[in-house]
Amino acid sequence: MKELGYYNGKIGELSEMTVPMNDRVCWFGDGVYEAGMCRNGIVFALDEHVDRLFRSAGMLQIRVPVSKEELKNLLDDLIRQMDTGNLMVYFQVTRGTGPRGHAFPAGPANLWITLTPKEINPDAAPVSLITGEDTRFFHCNIKTLNLIPSVMANERAKQAGCYECVFFRPGGRVTECSHSNVHILKDGVFRTAPTDNLILPGIARAHLIAACGRLGIPVIEEPFTVEDLPDADEIITSSSTAPCIRACRVDGRDAGMRDPERFAALHQAIFDEYFAQTGG
Amino acid sequence: MKELGYYNGKIGELSEMTVPMNDRVCWFGDGVYEAGMCRNGIVFALDEHVDRLFRSAGMLQIRVPVSKEELKNLLDDLIRQMDTGNLMVYFQVTRGTGPRGHAFPAGPANLWITLTPKEINPDAAPVSLITGEDTRFFHCNIKTLNLIPSVMANERAKQAGCYECVFFRPGGRVTECSHSNVHILKDGVFRTAPTDNLILPGIARAHLIAACGRLGIPVIEEPFTVEDLPDADEIITSSSTAPCIRACRVDGRDAGMRDPERFAALHQAIFDEYFAQTGG
Repeated sequence: MKELGYYNGKIGELSEMTVPMNDRVCWFGDGVYEAGMCRNGIVFALDEHVDRLFRSAGMLQIRVPVSKEELKNLLDDLIRQMDTGNLMVYFQVTRGTGPRGHAFPAGPANLWITLTPKEINPDAAPVSLITGEDTRFFHCNIKTLNLIPSVMANERAKQAGCYECVFFRPGGRVTECSHSNVHILKDGVFRTAPTDNLILPGIARAHLIAACGRLGIPVIEEPFTVEDLPDADEIITSSSTAPCIRACRVDGRDAGMRDPERFAALHQAIFDEYFAQTGG
Repeated sequence: MKELGYYNGKIGELSEMTVPMNDRVCWFGDGVYEAGMCRNGIVFALDEHVDRLFRSAGMLQIRVPVSKEELKNLLDDLIRQMDTGNLMVYFQVTRGTGPRGHAFPAGPANLWITLTPKEINPDAAPVSLITGEDTRFFHCNIKTLNLIPSVMANERAKQAGCYECVFFRPGGRVTECSHSNVHILKDGVFRTAPTDNLILPGIARAHLIAACGRLGIPVIEEPFTVEDLPDADEIITSSSTAPCIRACRVDGRDAGMRDPERFAALHQAIFDEYFAQTGG
């Protein structure tokens, strides 16, 4: 199969799959998701993704309709049906199906999976960023399907010829980007926002912090601001599909690119781990 | 037909209708909606609902795939296919269909309509409310499908045996409820939050303000706080499906119910207009 869609046991080519109009995702965006990378048929950091899905669901009182073990086995079965083992593995749970009404429905939650061919590009060129006010809700630690502000910000970035939009809250505190975390290197220290309710606790972020540990790079998990971006030695974005991206411009001005050795070491550590875990 | 679902020209019983898995609503909740009441086959305040849909869509750069006239004619055609002319008329536009990606897709937006039997109960008993912190995003003036915080708040209200949750922002400013606006009568004055980005500019709210005008009740559109609720003479919620609801309890304590004549006059004015516009 080329691009697989799965919905509560039904399987088909993604572009031909349909779902009930009364799935609550259609009226409320009422669900949570995960997206990870699979290489050689092996999903990188799968346990972390599955754990986070259950955590997100739990925070919204959504009961995932399978166990963690069942979900991992199901993903494995589906991956084996694909033409390639190099995939984006996306899965989500929505809060059930029924007549539109805000309060929770009686029935079970719905399980969705998509598998689409994708490979991480370790040699991605440095990117340009814009900044924008973070007007999202205060549940950004939950990986929900309420993503309109991220959609709008990502489109603004694209229209500006940029890769990402760096969000900041009133007062200037940098939170994250539209679909990535963001970090800076300054004077040899890795600085990244703390994992409160304003950012997603990124899995790639956690692996970057672990890599810093192995490399002896000090890590400070404290708020930094947009004012810190022009002075940063390096600006790095991370997500599961692009785990270590270097920025060279912010809002049209040259930025970062001033600690190439430390960035290269981090980048190497991230991809060494990725390749080692996914079949060498 | 009992409960109608419409999607881009396809029509069927709502519970049997399906939509493409790749509709962006499924990944991002990426769309806007309206819900209004139809009585005797006539949709109350239809122009206002259609105008607001186009305004919501415009603010998110979603191009509604039909004109206002076409949408109204389509709704009319569908309403005539129903077993009853007393309906909730729900319609939404989502930002198109395609492979998951934050930035806007190339193709056209999708038009959804549902029609379900419903009647407004003018004799609804006074309700109980809870209050809760407003943790939503800063685009509450746009009627989007990103509704998880409202879902959670409404479920909390339901679990507490209450009708609605009154949201307040840090500092105590009352915004609105999970699916209603909220207003107070105090010393003969109708007070309601201003229509900034923190509340939906409710159509029922606008009709309440107009009714105040006809009745000589002064209106103040300025922020009020949760501290003002216990002292309010009346607390009133409004939505298109329940346009003038009186509250008798807030957070477990008796509240409101102290200006019965003014409330009765407002209620009468709202329903006089509703019945007059929908066939008497």
